[in-house]
Amino acid sequence: TTIAAMDVLQWAEVAPGVWKATIGQADPLTPLNYAGTPKQDALAALEPAAFPFEKDVPVGQINAHGANVRIPLGAREKIYGLGLDFVGINRRKEVHHQHVDHYAQGKLKGRTHAPVPFYVSSDGYGVLVNTAHRPSFYVGSGNRKDSKLPTPVDRTTNKKGWSSRPLSDAVEVSVTGDGLEIFVFAGNNPLEAVQRYNLYCGGGVLPPRWGLGFWHRMHTQTDAATVVQEIADFEEHGFPLDVIGLEPGWQSFAYPCSFDWDPTRFPDPKGFLDTVGDKGIRINLWENPYISPESSISEAMKPYTGSHTVWLGEVADYTLPEAQKILLDHHQAKHLDIGVSGYKFDEVDGYDYWLWPDHATFPSGHDAVQIRQVYGVMIQNMLMNRFRELNQRTYGLVRSSNAGASNLGFVLYSDYYGHEGYITALVNSSFSGLLWTPEIRNADSGEEWVRRFQSVCFSPMLQLDAWNSGKKPWSYPEVTGIVRDVVELRTRLLPYLYTAFSEYNQKGVPPFRAMVLESGYKSEEKEVGGVLHGEKNPYAETNRLESTDQYMMGPSILVAPVLEKQKQRDVILPQGDWYDFYTGAFVGNGETITIKTKLEQIPLFVKDGGIIPMMPMAANLSKIEGKIPLEIRHYGKSAGAYELYDDDGETFDFEKGVFSTTRLEIRRVDGELAGSKTAAKGPWPSRYGEVSWVFMSE
Amino acid sequence: TTIAAMDVLQWAEVAPGVWKATIGQADPLTPLNYAGTPKQDALAALEPAAFPFEKDVPVGQINAHGANVRIPLGAREKIYGLGLDFVGINRRKEVHHQHVDHYAQGKLKGRTHAPVPFYVSSDGYGVLVNTAHRPSFYVGSGNRKDSKLPTPVDRTTNKKGWSSRPLSDAVEVSVTGDGLEIFVFAGNNPLEAVQRYNLYCGGGVLPPRWGLGFWHRMHTQTDAATVVQEIADFEEHGFPLDVIGLEPGWQSFAYPCSFDWDPTRFPDPKGFLDTVGDKGIRINLWENPYISPESSISEAMKPYTGSHTVWLGEVADYTLPEAQKILLDHHQAKHLDIGVSGYKFDEVDGYDYWLWPDHATFPSGHDAVQIRQVYGVMIQNMLMNRFRELNQRTYGLVRSSNAGASNLGFVLYSDYYGHEGYITALVNSSFSGLLWTPEIRNADSGEEWVRRFQSVCFSPMLQLDAWNSGKKPWSYPEVTGIVRDVVELRTRLLPYLYTAFSEYNQKGVPPFRAMVLESGYKSEEKEVGGVLHGEKNPYAETNRLESTDQYMMGPSILVAPVLEKQKQRDVILPQGDWYDFYTGAFVGNGETITIKTKLEQIPLFVKDGGIIPMMPMAANLSKIEGKIPLEIRHYGKSAGAYELYDDDGETFDFEKGVFSTTRLEIRRVDGELAGSKTAAKGPWPSRYGEVSWVFMSE
Repeated sequence: TTIAAMDVLQWAEVAPGVWKATIGQADPLTPLNYAGTPKQDALAALEPAAFPFEKDVPVGQINAHGANVRIPLGAREKIYGLGLDFVGINRRKEVHHQHVDHYAQGKLKGRTHAPVPFYVSSDGYGVLVNTAHRPSFYVGSGNRKDSKLPTPVDRTTNKKGWSSRPLSDAVEVSVTGDGLEIFVFAGNNPLEAVQRYNLYCGGGVLPPRWGLGFWHRMHTQTDAATVVQEIADFEEHGFPLDVIGLEPGWQSFAYPCSFDWDPTRFPDPKGFLDTVGDKGIRINLWENPYISPESSISEAMKPYTGSHTVWLGEVADYTLPEAQKILLDHHQAKHLDIGVSGYKFDEVDGYDYWLWPDHATFPSGHDAVQIRQVYGVMIQNMLMNRFRELNQRTYGLVRSSNAGASNLGFVLYSDYYGHEGYITALVNSSFSGLLWTPEIRNADSGEEWVRRFQSVCFSPMLQLDAWNSGKKPWSYPEVTGIVRDVVELRTRLLPYLYTAFSEYNQKGVPPFRAMVLESGYKSEEKEVGGVLHGEKNPYAETNRLESTDQYMMGPSILVAPVLEKQKQRDVILPQGDWYDFYTGAFVGNGETITIKTKLEQIPLFVKDGGIIPMMPMAANLSKIEGKIPLEIRHYGKSAGAYELYDDDGETFDFEKGVFSTTRLEIRRVDGELAGSKTAAKGPWPSRYGEVSWVFMSE
Repeated sequence: TTIAAMDVLQWAEVAPGVWKATIGQADPLTPLNYAGTPKQDALAALEPAAFPFEKDVPVGQINAHGANVRIPLGAREKIYGLGLDFVGINRRKEVHHQHVDHYAQGKLKGRTHAPVPFYVSSDGYGVLVNTAHRPSFYVGSGNRKDSKLPTPVDRTTNKKGWSSRPLSDAVEVSVTGDGLEIFVFAGNNPLEAVQRYNLYCGGGVLPPRWGLGFWHRMHTQTDAATVVQEIADFEEHGFPLDVIGLEPGWQSFAYPCSFDWDPTRFPDPKGFLDTVGDKGIRINLWENPYISPESSISEAMKPYTGSHTVWLGEVADYTLPEAQKILLDHHQAKHLDIGVSGYKFDEVDGYDYWLWPDHATFPSGHDAVQIRQVYGVMIQNMLMNRFRELNQRTYGLVRSSNAGASNLGFVLYSDYYGHEGYITALVNSSFSGLLWTPEIRNADSGEEWVRRFQSVCFSPMLQLDAWNSGKKPWSYPEVTGIVRDVVELRTRLLPYLYTAFSEYNQKGVPPFRAMVLESGYKSEEKEVGGVLHGEKNPYAETNRLESTDQYMMGPSILVAPVLEKQKQRDVILPQGDWYDFYTGAFVGNGETITIKTKLEQIPLFVKDGGIIPMMPMAANLSKIEGKIPLEIRHYGKSAGAYELYDDDGETFDFEKGVFSTTRLEIRRVDGELAGSKTAAKGPWPSRYGEVSWVFMSE
């Protein structure tokens, strides 16, 4: 065999600040097939940014193994992204064999619910390898003999200088197969690269307003009457409620799934949905995609299913329009047309020993590995399309995703239940166009219950998924008040949060995002360890300590969640003055502060000039009547401005421009801060009414 | 794309009881390239056994993903093998993505030092998928919609019957690429299938006699004088010593490796080797294969190295004869010709972030993944060939292997250091033509020191690898006597052990082997757990409890090692009467006994009629003078016979028939047991002399 030389990649600018190159033969099945349409205008409106490399430096090759590309990497660059991860954020010196899996199996990087083949550099650019294969990312791992190698160190005589992971000058990515497609997203900083990626994928999702309310999932054997009773219980205990999730037992058979209502537990689905709908409650249905022989679509789907079953259910090939139509028509007729609001799509991830084997066949002829790698986005996309046809927004859950998911109304979750890992996952999601919920299932103590509630209240989905443990928000009476307080705070922040999501949609700015995407933030990393130990560390490997436990929500709020038993914690403040959310007091500027934790508060900090619109508490977001008065909080000393977004909260009309923005402005007049509000601009009549100004730091 | 149908495999009998089928285009680079020549006569001498399936049932296919085969699997069959594994032995319901790796990364099956694509069924046959790709084995995992599926169970209403791993009727194996080659080994029981596999790979290795003695590795910065002193220390403390291992620092540069002697620490290699050789001590050299720029072969090798470095060392492409010749000529001139006995080949496994990437290129044009997958056997084989040319046996260590390794004189080891896992690894090795050493590196207590010594004394290599901890056999004075006793016992058993290895060589019977390869043994498995727990076990998965903590050594001895802190243990006795090795007392028959452990003994049991030849203690196996008297122990009540093997212990002349066997026979004459010994048969004059008979159970 002769080996092809590395070819210089040929770049074409496919959108402002976005370039594409292809090596070999591009695949017909890729994650971007399931992304939205690039937002060309929004991309053009970003600060211009240059192609980040010398044009002739990135190279590619087809060889005996498949296709590979090599992207240069500076000695001090950090690399973020590559999808959902529960540990660490800087991916440098790691190898990620990306492979959709049930959850991160310890140390093997790349086995994740969402192996997104996109990374962002600390130097302010992004790279997407648009493949549905299982790509391997070598992130500054390994050296080539034709590169400028570091000098070898004799390990025997000078252990200090020796490293099992010597510095390397490239990110290399390979796939099996005949080619691959690669995109580069420019930026003047990492956030802009992320914005370009999200906008190229259609912009971030704007959930329906109710999607940002309180979600609660019922026991799998729940019947219609129990749901109605549960709603009453929430009201009685003074907890808001917006969405009820039904677990597998709403169906006549699961698992595998029938997708048909169980006639015993839900004899009158429409009546049930009408009843709860009258109370403003949305219904979300759990499903996994494996089709029971009992399902009413089982026979129709048979020609479009793959060779292998999962849990004895057939697996539809949704690359085929016929298969999509069967499922979607069924779901529309049986669920959506009577008021179902969305789905929780479970087990599209799956351990290898649960799912179809790599060599399974599907009627479309696509590689089973590729179908598995994008099965999550494929299902999100087809449901999203049908919801869009119905002009009804949806918001739901899914357990696997990939690239191109920014515009899809689904939030990731996991069977894994580590609180600390949940926060890291939330942080990492922001690099990859993903949303993540640190949902609550159970707790060993009232303290843990509070801490988990506080974290989930500052996340894309406030969900209690305690169907199995049977816990309710008030299950730990000693802390019910504290739990109620943070749920109320989350609810009151809805105008701010909803506006942050509109920024995600229109500008690609993640509503929850890693600190390294914030200007003025200095990422801190330490390499620790590195001491040779015959049994425990024979290669004197170091561990990287990173700060992955705080993040930004919207433009101004820094969230620093507290874990159970954590009596104090460090908070790294970006440059600029920062203020305590609760008191308005100055806390620091560009420094690391150590705070004592209080059970009743999740630490929140607001940047100087930050403007935060808050509404009154509401027990249900769909039942708010009349104009909504706002308390506009301002923090710090500086003037500021804020564009408050509003729309109907339910349809896709906002995509046609049916929304409005209200400009809130704070100026200092004669030494005193003063606020002003413009009339709402745009065709949508804003529902926000009178405002009161609160200058928290004066 | 149209999907090819599954084709019936076409089988050709390539040796007695061994069949081969090919699907698509067979690969040029496979593990069997590095195996020995099939022992056709020995295969023919085995009990005849039929092809284990209906000829038209195993099927294969080429599809979008690559090539795959499907082998039928009975509902009650158990599957063993698939290489080195530290956990469990029955591989049913598992998926193994075979991938050479530094060590088993927790739960991900197939990531191992030795991913051998060969399995043995409890029904008595073996299957080898002869590939250097990374095959995926789906061992009764997953179902096809065209198979007879189990009946789905509604999980919601009947959790008991539901399983996340429903029973399946096949083993399916897939690889990327254009084809694969598959071998079936018949047998009347699992042992015969293993024998056929080993014999087809050239028979098991027969180590040089000294290889079964005491191995001790020196600190990496050791010099020649220190080695000589260490030998004296062993003598002074009354411990035997046969092999000294030199760690990286014997070289002028490491890592990467120069392979050249360090002129400071070893200024006169030949003088050093002569000195220690006079004392009967062999020298084993540590190496990894990554070539330092400082090496004397660096320039010559450059044209034959791959695109990427490991730890900044170049990686030779040993599929090329030119590359082999450069290394072997160097090693012969610099090491072997002056008396080096063998090598410890480290880091041919390696984490993905240490080794070359999957898309690296090599001058031969072979896929880098394939080169990595067989790099261990490739290096073992080329060294073995050179040793054979020199008519000098070798015995050494290696950290990765694959199929076809039975005949290669290397023992596997790991950086992992779990005592329990070490025993399981020893057991699993016997299914895959591998040898494993539970080498000792350190201990937290004298008790652990004893327990690890006892285990390693009943393994293929008695090695103390405590160079880093600095421990010596006498480092725990309170147990030195006990340690000395078990080392003495191991030494005294040499005639028995060496004969067991000759059975490995001539008949393919592993000298250390899993109980399920022993007739009359009933494997016990329990499925436990299966209780739904929202956070800890959401799929109500069961755990399989298996007995992996005992094994057979040679024809008659059952070894039941004791872990530190283990005050009692169960021993499962196969059918037939069993006797305590130390007392000769009857202990049971086809039952599970519970024994109280004693610190001073590793529990050993001997089957009825077992004959065990033991020699006197020897401080060095190469320095034994004159005829060796034997104590022949007999256990139980039954008559028995034993063929005691002997040869020169050093050369390959035994392969040309230069060996002898002495028949030892026990009969009952007038109610009394009596022993008889024939003269040695064969051209080699046996070194064994007078015998004394000891009837342990009379």
